[in-house]
Amino acid sequence: MNIIKFSRGVPPVESFPIRKLSDCACDALAKYGPDLLQYGGGAGFQPLCRYLAAQAGAADNQVVVGQGSLLLQDFLARLLIVPGDRVYLENPTYDRTILTFRRSGAAVEGVPVEADGLDVAWVETRLRKGDRPVLLYSIPDFQNPTGTVLSLPKRQRLVELAEQYGFWLVEDVPYRQLRYRGENLPSLFDLNPRRVIQMSSYSKQIGPGLRVGYVISPQPLAGRLERFLEEAYICPTFLVQAMVYEFIQRGWLDANLRELRALYPPRLEAMLSALDDCMTGLATWYRPEGGFFIGVRLQAAIRQADLLARANEAGLVLTDGRTFFTGAEGEGFVRLPFCSLTPEEIREGIERLAGVVSRLSMEAGERV
Amino acid sequence: MNIIKFSRGVPPVESFPIRKLSDCACDALAKYGPDLLQYGGGAGFQPLCRYLAAQAGAADNQVVVGQGSLLLQDFLARLLIVPGDRVYLENPTYDRTILTFRRSGAAVEGVPVEADGLDVAWVETRLRKGDRPVLLYSIPDFQNPTGTVLSLPKRQRLVELAEQYGFWLVEDVPYRQLRYRGENLPSLFDLNPRRVIQMSSYSKQIGPGLRVGYVISPQPLAGRLERFLEEAYICPTFLVQAMVYEFIQRGWLDANLRELRALYPPRLEAMLSALDDCMTGLATWYRPEGGFFIGVRLQAAIRQADLLARANEAGLVLTDGRTFFTGAEGEGFVRLPFCSLTPEEIREGIERLAGVVSRLSMEAGERV
Repeated sequence: MNIIKFSRGVPPVESFPIRKLSDCACDALAKYGPDLLQYGGGAGFQPLCRYLAAQAGAADNQVVVGQGSLLLQDFLARLLIVPGDRVYLENPTYDRTILTFRRSGAAVEGVPVEADGLDVAWVETRLRKGDRPVLLYSIPDFQNPTGTVLSLPKRQRLVELAEQYGFWLVEDVPYRQLRYRGENLPSLFDLNPRRVIQMSSYSKQIGPGLRVGYVISPQPLAGRLERFLEEAYICPTFLVQAMVYEFIQRGWLDANLRELRALYPPRLEAMLSALDDCMTGLATWYRPEGGFFIGVRLQAAIRQADLLARANEAGLVLTDGRTFFTGAEGEGFVRLPFCSLTPEEIREGIERLAGVVSRLSMEAGERV
Repeated sequence: MNIIKFSRGVPPVESFPIRKLSDCACDALAKYGPDLLQYGGGAGFQPLCRYLAAQAGAADNQVVVGQGSLLLQDFLARLLIVPGDRVYLENPTYDRTILTFRRSGAAVEGVPVEADGLDVAWVETRLRKGDRPVLLYSIPDFQNPTGTVLSLPKRQRLVELAEQYGFWLVEDVPYRQLRYRGENLPSLFDLNPRRVIQMSSYSKQIGPGLRVGYVISPQPLAGRLERFLEEAYICPTFLVQAMVYEFIQRGWLDANLRELRALYPPRLEAMLSALDDCMTGLATWYRPEGGFFIGVRLQAAIRQADLLARANEAGLVLTDGRTFFTGAEGEGFVRLPFCSLTPEEIREGIERLAGVVSRLSMEAGERV
């Protein structure tokens, strides 16, 4: 039996523009060779910094391009967090972010996620009671792992709260360019660039192995991050940053995004219709308009360990849903990535999942 | 007046094999494209890991190739050090290493450096008195910033002490391939692979901007480092690691090292003879047989701030010698890098330095 992997959120290898990147590597080395091979500054390849600053309407020195956005997050956490500091994360959220902030010594608190994004009223209630987080981390566009989008009124209220109570909003937007229907809302950074640290990467736009991520933040924070990176790794790998810059300059990024926005929607639709056909009554889920994931909540009280084991027997690899939660809320949660499987594999995978879940639901019912 | 920089220890840009690296980039993408662009493991590009393991006589899973050896050092420090732990560093040593271990919360202690390397008797005395460092960090070959080499008897005694008292030896060998005369001694890792963490990089062998460094260490430490890196940055930039691998496979690394070992000795000789001619009586120094640096100790009580300011006026940029020391021992210390200047620039620079130092020495004499 073929194994179907609903595990990590990776892009399909067939989407990687290998030949184009090869051209970009040669051209980057021909144009900038000595600078790419020498030691340099901690802020990254300057032409790419300038391009990103212009895109975001920020100053050049507000942009730091580094070795993937996760490592930048690690350094931000080390810069901003004193052990014991409170940090708000969406609950569920990107599993590695929970690890990153816990490692920095933060007291991590999970904010419930609703159909229109994180529960801003919950945040406001806490703040009114005197809670003082250092930062709130959010993935406002096609959230990992739920697929939800933070609504405009919530975005507006959130930046007001950040201003009023003096905390950072860390906005992670790796999926923002992957909207398949509708229009993007303004980013948190668009709404209040003084209180927002925006981070993103080219992992989902070109290829993750390049490890090109970036942070746009206000000064003096951006300068502190740059100096900290310089102390810790001197400089990033400039070559891949220059390749991304060349890729953008030739118009290939736009072309690539158009291809991805054509490749992924049939996969999303295949997953949604398979869920409708096979999982109605067994689970609930959001209907994302972009991104990589659908987050599914099972109806019956099914233990994650049983789910993973039975799925495995059925030739289905799942990620442990508990890893996306700050507390014990993840027992009946399943994250379903849809980008790196064909519609046929997706249908087959959801059928297997439905079979496993319906058997476990019956067993759970019998136990009650 | 042309400015002469005796500041950071960078290779000359004319030494970078840009065209060859361009070939390696294309070939690496053609051969391994999907793997290089996808997420992967925290240990780095596996063919390079296997090559390095075979070279070192280690198992494949003992090698971690990452984003430059400095970042690997940062992660090792975070893995091994609990705040308050004692760490021994050569005094003087690589300035960024002092920062790295201090940042991890270590109580850093400087071990004096003699003509034949760090003072192992000093270490032994401390150990006998009950001092228990977690690790000792050394650059045994052409030490940064002194240029000294740790003698064989000292190497042998050091690994015995590490075994007896149960501490790690972190051996940093970025200059080991750059010996211009004589024969290399066995590395600490050669002498005791159970107690030694060896780190190095291709920064001085190919080009620093690539950011390809590595750590060879015993299990289970190597596995812990790999998992920690995976949690913090998922994977390194595989492309540059694959380029280095291709570069090695074609015999170009050996050729490159032969070129560097032809390019640098006239520069070292130019610096030694200029020092002999201009600085005798004003300072003392070691006579390195390889590497990047000569460490100079001024005779007169000259304050570093005065030295840097006067050198600047004379068109000479120096690194603050105090940054290489764990305590206040760096006032009269100057690190002189010789690789990225021509023999003519080196002679001119040393003449300027001698002028500055002799004027400051006279002034210091008058003050006494």
